[in-house]
Parts: sequence; structure tokens; C-alpha cells
Amino acid sequence: MKILVAQLNLVIGDLAGNFAKIKETITKAKNHNEDTVVFPELALTGYPPNDLLLRKGFVDEQLSYLEEVKRLTTESDLHVFIGAVTKNDGVGKPLRNAALVFSRGVEIFRYHKQLLPTYNVFDENRYFEAGSADQNNVLTVLRDNGKHWQVGVLICEDCWNDEAICDVPLYPTNPVKKTFREGFKANDSSNPCSTPISEVSVERMFKGDPNIVITLNASPSDIGKHNLRYQMYTALSKKYKAAFVYANSVGAQDALIFDGHSFMVEGDHIYYAKGFEEHLWSIFIDGGKPHAPLHPPICVREHLIFEHLKLGIRDYVRKNGFSQVVVGSSGGIDSAVVLMLAVEALGPQNVFAITMPSKFSSAGSVDDSVELCDMLGIKLYTRPIVNDVLLSIEEYKKAFGEDPKRIMIENMQARQRGRVLMEFSNQTGALVLSTGNKSEMSVGYCTIYGDMCGGLSVIADLYKMEVYALAKWYNDQKGESIIPKNIVDKAPSAELWEGQKDTDSLPPYPVLDALLKLYLERDLLNRKEVEEATAAIENMSLKEIKRILSMTDRAEFKRQQAAPVLRVHKRAFGFGRTLPITQRYAVSYENVL
Amino acid sequence: MKILVAQLNLVIGDLAGNFAKIKETITKAKNHNEDTVVFPELALTGYPPNDLLLRKGFVDEQLSYLEEVKRLTTESDLHVFIGAVTKNDGVGKPLRNAALVFSRGVEIFRYHKQLLPTYNVFDENRYFEAGSADQNNVLTVLRDNGKHWQVGVLICEDCWNDEAICDVPLYPTNPVKKTFREGFKANDSSNPCSTPISEVSVERMFKGDPNIVITLNASPSDIGKHNLRYQMYTALSKKYKAAFVYANSVGAQDALIFDGHSFMVEGDHIYYAKGFEEHLWSIFIDGGKPHAPLHPPICVREHLIFEHLKLGIRDYVRKNGFSQVVVGSSGGIDSAVVLMLAVEALGPQNVFAITMPSKFSSAGSVDDSVELCDMLGIKLYTRPIVNDVLLSIEEYKKAFGEDPKRIMIENMQARQRGRVLMEFSNQTGALVLSTGNKSEMSVGYCTIYGDMCGGLSVIADLYKMEVYALAKWYNDQKGESIIPKNIVDKAPSAELWEGQKDTDSLPPYPVLDALLKLYLERDLLNRKEVEEATAAIENMSLKEIKRILSMTDRAEFKRQQAAPVLRVHKRAFGFGRTLPITQRYAVSYENVL
Repeated sequence: MKILVAQLNLVIGDLAGNFAKIKETITKAKNHNEDTVVFPELALTGYPPNDLLLRKGFVDEQLSYLEEVKRLTTESDLHVFIGAVTKNDGVGKPLRNAALVFSRGVEIFRYHKQLLPTYNVFDENRYFEAGSADQNNVLTVLRDNGKHWQVGVLICEDCWNDEAICDVPLYPTNPVKKTFREGFKANDSSNPCSTPISEVSVERMFKGDPNIVITLNASPSDIGKHNLRYQMYTALSKKYKAAFVYANSVGAQDALIFDGHSFMVEGDHIYYAKGFEEHLWSIFIDGGKPHAPLHPPICVREHLIFEHLKLGIRDYVRKNGFSQVVVGSSGGIDSAVVLMLAVEALGPQNVFAITMPSKFSSAGSVDDSVELCDMLGIKLYTRPIVNDVLLSIEEYKKAFGEDPKRIMIENMQARQRGRVLMEFSNQTGALVLSTGNKSEMSVGYCTIYGDMCGGLSVIADLYKMEVYALAKWYNDQKGESIIPKNIVDKAPSAELWEGQKDTDSLPPYPVLDALLKLYLERDLLNRKEVEEATAAIENMSLKEIKRILSMTDRAEFKRQQAAPVLRVHKRAFGFGRTLPITQRYAVSYENVL
Repeated sequence: MKILVAQLNLVIGDLAGNFAKIKETITKAKNHNEDTVVFPELALTGYPPNDLLLRKGFVDEQLSYLEEVKRLTTESDLHVFIGAVTKNDGVGKPLRNAALVFSRGVEIFRYHKQLLPTYNVFDENRYFEAGSADQNNVLTVLRDNGKHWQVGVLICEDCWNDEAICDVPLYPTNPVKKTFREGFKANDSSNPCSTPISEVSVERMFKGDPNIVITLNASPSDIGKHNLRYQMYTALSKKYKAAFVYANSVGAQDALIFDGHSFMVEGDHIYYAKGFEEHLWSIFIDGGKPHAPLHPPICVREHLIFEHLKLGIRDYVRKNGFSQVVVGSSGGIDSAVVLMLAVEALGPQNVFAITMPSKFSSAGSVDDSVELCDMLGIKLYTRPIVNDVLLSIEEYKKAFGEDPKRIMIENMQARQRGRVLMEFSNQTGALVLSTGNKSEMSVGYCTIYGDMCGGLSVIADLYKMEVYALAKWYNDQKGESIIPKNIVDKAPSAELWEGQKDTDSLPPYPVLDALLKLYLERDLLNRKEVEEATAAIENMSLKEIKRILSMTDRAEFKRQQAAPVLRVHKRAFGFGRTLPITQRYAVSYENVL
């Protein structure tokens, strides 16, 4: 059986555009005599469509495109597997997250996703009713060579609740197990969820366990997620003695980065599609060893982060109709890394930098920006804020009758800069990229409406030490200091006051990062990660731990007004982490130790 | 039976503070010889605790406070009904949303909420495993007078799925029906969910349908929600021939306003607790007609809005440790209404206004601000932005070599003002209140980091015409124009350009508001509301409708960086409405008509 895995970059809500891509892919599949083409979960709407699903007309319009997809299979034996939203006729949530199979112009199979993730960035229970554990999810595909294929169909989360891969099941049912052990029983009784077969060259005779399980996915990534998937599905394949095909979407949607990395696994053998780009990946499976072009995945952590963020920037910018971006260049490591990523994502001609020195800026901060922008080949503007700051102080005294405090002057400088960036954006149409990292976003070491300005928070899911590591890795890759050595080596400073250093108010970053990791993500870390982080903070006083955790809680109001944060860790700031601003939980070291 | 309904204003995460309130209430209940005291849903954590539930130590700490609550009942016949988070020992989500009953130092009953709302502002499936439909939820309370009371226990959403009150059930089970028709069967079998009874003066003999159903709630409000509850529970009471006690919490938590309005209903008779404030409400029920102090609820729409927003401001400000607020006073209706609400919520001594005229400001805008602040008795500062604007234009030309466009100059003025407000905030500790209304937040007629600055969006869930109506109602109530007639009567303008009026780029507000209502909330409106709104837009061209809807979608990036929006409508901007920024759904008039 020849299977074309359609790892497509779809756009949420772009029903016409997504349909066009699907149509083009089906044409290619026919031309290449594929037996089957597999599209990702919720392919027509893009994933996650969120409250577009509640909008009058949206689901109906998607359903008529789905009819169009079905019509594309007329007079063809090609089997089209596609994920789509369907309606729930019964009690419960009005919609289903479904997989449909079309062939010869007919819907020959329909399956409803059973496990609806509702945690972290997922919210599927908000819209969908779960499919019944009793529905049949195995169909028989008869190929021209006379072979019957028993094909199991599952959607994403359905595969993540098997004892082989999780210690504590999150759901009472295990759809994978059902596929193999109980599919036959389900087939004996009438199956209300699958559409009756009509006159197509397909027999739904169930003679044994499926040879192959096709899974439709829209699986957002974090660092190392692709390896986790390989491990999990290897375990499943070995346990159930069947091949698993994992068809994923690719591309970024606001905070979420879908890494692609579709694959097939049979026992210990993994066959890899490409990561971080569209891929029409043709695989062949025929009882013997499968054949598929191999694209070995990336293993280096910094390289993975780089690819995630590059894709995240590119898709956010382009899918939202922008072509150019602008970044405030402080001469520090954060803005340097954001500029580098923007250049890699969009090309140097589409990236602008503005250096905005104040009287507290070191000479180095402008010089380093100049050198950086030279190396990156991008235009650097200089727009000093010295006069703006003086005027603001003077006018403040006049209007309010007192001298501004240090905290006012510090934040005001950041806001002058944020305003200049937005002026440039309003004037030119370039999108402002925000440069805050996860460490400072955690403790609130950033100014709301100041350096937090921007349409996208590029590195706000990277701890400070990860930003350094990314810069070093990039320079190593390039064989030269594209990001100047000065920038990588200098002590971090906001330069909002004379002689200010980050360490005036914060612990050294290796310690701070470890503490924050424990506080923000502990429940998602493995034992080794917890041990390492715990070791890193062993010299902190309990009082200091409490101080940092309290700062982190108090900064929640800033984060809720931040731009979307490109997600690379298991828990990023944004909609995947929902905390009240108004709350008085008294944090203590017990929350991390 | 004497029941004390403890309608408390709890703070999320404030385990110690909430426990102290609960303890004090139990002491009062003992002193007043109450038989029973009923606390709201999730009383110790506050509602909704959100991802605090995932934090290491949080649930354990809550459970030890729960033990403390139990101990408070030692040597007392008082029955304490309390909502709390408990752990799920079985498969599924690790937590339960539970109701517990303590008496004589023992847990005599435990019930797990069955229907977990996961829509709009609710997200309970994210944390909790639903209680089994088979669990017993009726307990017998034996009073000193020898009477047995059969008491049903349900939590909030559990009551909202009965055929008597909803056309289309959202869940497959109906806990109310089970309480009455099937509770006995459940009782015959062993009930794994309720703790065994020990040596307390309580018999769990089930002799018939419950006489009374006690419901624990944390029900956030929107305009008219209290009336909806009265209607629903009247229908339930009549259908099941039992009294229902509805114990709600009160107080605001970020965007959510819990209105209180606890009540008891028996057939057609409703007994009302207070709205919008804490209330220890003692009711007496003894077979005959119940007795309870009555507090007739508010019926006037504008009055309700006023009370919602007043509570919303007060609790956001105080619970977050602020005492003072500052508002940019433009001389327009929005800032006037926000100032009025702030004064009502916090007192005039805690409210500051700043007028920030530019060269485009009309003379009236300053004069009207002066008159308004006089009437409200608050301090008004004048801080012109004329010089800031001139300097910005000059520096822009110098740095970027071109003349700023109109759109840059317009937004820049708003950002200069936003910065001045934040300077005042940084200097004084006063919280900035944001003044945008729902109409302009919809179409993006607002400047991000400019007039959108602030910790709380006070009226961003009021359409423009509702803002006017609120102002008029307030002046009528006061018998004088506290909000000056000029402000109420003038044509709305952003005053960011010569002669600018809102209607230059927007339809008249009565039309715009109707269209937006259809677009944003249609699925939640009743037929009459849809008809009225549809009639209001009948003169709009299809092209104009599309234009406005597209503007609304394109402004999503601004709303995602807005301050929390006090919720008064069924669907407010914020976490109760989740839309991607990156999306290309081609809106059309079919989405509203």
C-alpha cells in the first residue's frame, strides 16, 4: 500500500486556502498512484480553531468544503483520510473532532476522537463531545493486488493513554487497545458512528488485528517532543505488532509551533519525514519491510530551539500579512538573538533595528548594535531618547509638582523606546518583535508598554541561559561571531540607571533559571531535570527563594498583557498557563522543594 | 431546620484568609444555634483557582485547612456544608470539585460535582474528574426535634441540565433527576464516593425524595443572571416538589463578578439574600412555609450594570493591594463614566484624573473634565502633551528621514498619554484604569500601549450606547448632572486629528452596537434580542457589514494585550472568548444574518 502523508502548513480559519492545498495534494496523490493520502487532524479549519467553531456559519462552511473533498475522490480508488469538524447529533457538546475516509466519491468511514485533551494549551472539551469507546475504528481497505488491509484509525491524543507509554492513565479508556483487542466485537454489532458503505471496492470484513494504524495529528511541539513521539509509538508498535503512521501538521499558529516530523514506525524501525517544513511524504508498506525516504531528525537542543523559533517568527509574520519586522537593539544578548532569528526567518532585507540610547546607555551598547547589524546585514537606525526623557521629567515636575522617583524614570525610558518602535511600526507597517526572555518575564524584570511592546514575544519561553546558549551555538555553526563576542560576554544590564546590573536585584541567571524552572514547570519535568535544578539552587536561602517566587506571582498582570509567546518548553506563558492576577496564595519554598 | 447561607467574598489562593472567614462564620452559626451552615463551591481556594491547582503543595495545603474546618465542628451538631478541592484516587484527572459535610468532627458526606462546565469562562475539565452519576447525593439529617431531613447536595452546574430549564441538554446525565428519582437505588448499593458514617447523631436512612436540595455555587454573573437563576430554580422546585437552597459566593476576581444573590425557592416562593455584598443569611424551613429575611433584587438594567462594575473595580483594586486609581480624562463619555464608577467604588479621595490636551483637543475637552471632576469631588491634574508630540515628530524626522504619517501621529498621541498615566502610576502607586468601551475594543478603534494602558478595563464589556445609558441613569438617580450635560451630549471623537469624529470611520453607534452584538454574542442571545439587533442594522450595506466584521477580527491582537475586562455580558473579551490572532476566516454577512 502506498500512503502519502500530507504534512501541510495550514492556516486557521482559511477554509478556502486550506481546501486548495488539500485539493492540490489529492491531485498529486492520484498522479503518483498513491493508494491512500492522509491529511492532519482538523485539516480544513486548521488547529486549534478555538471559538471560530462557535461562529455562525463557520462549521457549515467547513462541512461544504468537506463535501468538496469527498467529490474529489469520485472515480478514483484513492482513499482520502482527513480530519474535520463534524456535528454531534446526540446529547452533549454540539461538535465532533472526526476522521473521515473518502473513496470513489463516498464517505466510507467516520471515526470520532475519543480522548479530548483539556490541559496545558489544549481545550478540546470546550467544543467537542468525545467519541464512544464502542465505535468501530478499523476499516478494511482492499487493494488492486487483492490484499486486504486492516487499517485502524485514531486521532492524536487517542494514542497517548496506553499503559506502554504512560504510568498513570489520564482517561478511563484506551482507544489503542480497543483498536486491537475489541475492534472485532464492535464490528459485530451495528456501528452508529461509521457511515454505511455503498458501492465502492472496499470490503469491511474484519479478519484480524489491524496491520497498520493511521493516526491523524495536529501536535504542537516543544523541545524534544518529536523524540518522545518516536519512543511512544515504537513502544506501541512493538506491543501491538503493527505499523503506526503518524501524520502531523506543520507550521506556527500564534504561540503554538507544529513541528511536522511525521513518521512511520514498525517495531524498532522508524521512518522519518521532515521537520519544520511542509512535506508530501510517500511511504510504501507491503507486508515486508516498509520503504520510505528518510530525513533524520535534529538532535541538538539549540538547533531545535532555533528551528522552532524561526518557523514561529516566519509564520506569525507572513500569515498575518506582514513582511517586515523591527526590533529595539539594546546591545544586549536578548535583542541580538531576536534580530538573528528574525534575519534567519525573513531575510536581512526585512529586518530593521533601532538603537535608542539614553544618558544611561554605555558607549558599548550602541557600538555593539552597530557591529551586530553589520554582521547580520541589516539596517540600524539610531534614535536617541535623551531629549524625550528630559522633557518628560520636566513636564512631570510642572504638572504634578514633584520630582520623579527612580522607578518612574526607569520605566519611563523603556516606554519612550516602546513608543518609538510603535511609531516606526505605524509608519512603515513593520511588526515589532518583543525581546524579553522567560527569566525576566517571570520575575517582572520588564516594563509593561515599554520593552514588552510588540506583536510577538520571540524568546519569552527561553530562560536567560538558554538565550546565551543559542547565541553561542549559532556563532559556532557559522564559524564566526555573527553575534559579537562583546554582546555574548558582557554582564546583563537594563541600563536604565547609572551602573545598573541585573544581578543588583536578581540572583545569577544559572540559579534564577533553575528556580524558575522548578516553580513554573516542575510537574512536567522528569526526575533528572528536577534533580539538576534542585542542585543548582542549593545555595539559595529560603528567604531569597520566597522573594523570587513572590516577584513571579506579582508579575502576572504584566504577562497577561504580553504578546503571544512562542512556545518551546512544556509550559510557556500565555493561554497554556492560566493563573488569576487577583490571588493571594502565600508562596513558600515548599512550592519548589 | 435553621440554615445559614454563608455568602462570602473569598480571595483566590488566600487559603489562610478564606479559612479565617469560614472559621468566624462557623462560630457565628454555633452562637446563633443554626443547624446547618452552607459555604460556596471551592470556598477555601476561591473560584476559579485555575492553574494554582497544579502548583506543588497547593492542594495539600488546602486539604489541611479543610481538616481544620472539620475540627471546628467537634462537639457540635452543626452541619457544615463546604465546597473544596479533593483528590481523585481513581483514573482520570487528579482532582475533584467536591461538596463535603462535617459534623461532630467527622466527615459525614462527600459528593463529587458531576457536570463540569467547560465553555465560555469555565474550564473545569482542565482540572477535575467528573463525579459518577451513580454516587449517592442525598444525606439524612436528624434534628433535635426528631425530624429527619432528606437533604440533596448538588454543586452549581449540576442543576443546569434538567429538561425543565434547558431545551437541549449539554450533558448526558441529569444530576437533579437522579437526586429525586434514583437516589434510593444508588443508596442500596455501596457508594464508593461517600465516606462511611461514624458515631454521629446522623442516620443515613433514605425514606423518600429529599425535602430540600442544598446547592453550593460559585456562579459568575452577567446582567440578569440572577433572574435567570430564580426562574430556573422555581421550575426545578415546582417540578420536583422540594425546596432548593442556592448558596453563592460574592465578589470580583479579575474579569469575573460574582453577584451573590443567594436564594431559597419553594414552589413559587422565592426568598432573596442580598446582591453584590457579603451576607450571612439565616433561613428557617420546617415543613410549613419557610422564613427568611427578604432583600428584593435590583430590576433596572443600568442599576445592575452599575453594581457589577462598582464591585468589579473595588475588588480588583483592593484585593490586589492598591487603594488609589488614576484615569485619563478626555472630556468624553467613556472616561467620565469610568471616573464616576471609580468614585462610587473607592471614594473621591482615592481617584485622580489627568487631562492631557494636545493641539487637537477642543477647548471643551479640558473644561468638561474640570466640571466633571468638580462634580465628582476629585483631583484633576493637567499635563499637556503638546511638547511631547512636537518633539516626537521632530526626532522621528531626524532619525528616520521622513515625515510621520497621520496614523503614526494619531497613535503616538495616545501613547504619550498612556505613558504619562503610567508615570503617575509608577510614582504614586495608583492603578491606571483603562476606559475603552466594547464597541471600540471590537473594531480596534483604540491604541495599543496608548489609551489601552491600564490594570483593569472597566467598561470594555459595555457597548457605547450602554455607556451613555449608564451615564443618564446615574444622573437621573442623583437628580443632577454629575456627569455634565456637555459630556453626555457631544459627538464622540478621539480628538487625535483636526475635526475628527468617530462617525468618520464608523457607523452610528446604535447601528454599530447592534451589529457587534450579533457578531460577538449571537449564539447566546434570545430570539427577541436577535430580532431587535437585526432590525437595527437593516439599512447597512452588505459591504459595510463585512468591513466592520473584518475590522473586528483584525483587532484581535490588540484585545489579547488588553487589561482584564470586567464581564457584564454573556460573552466578554478576555479568557471567555478564545480566538486565534493568526487566522484567515473570510467573514461575511452570513456570520450575523
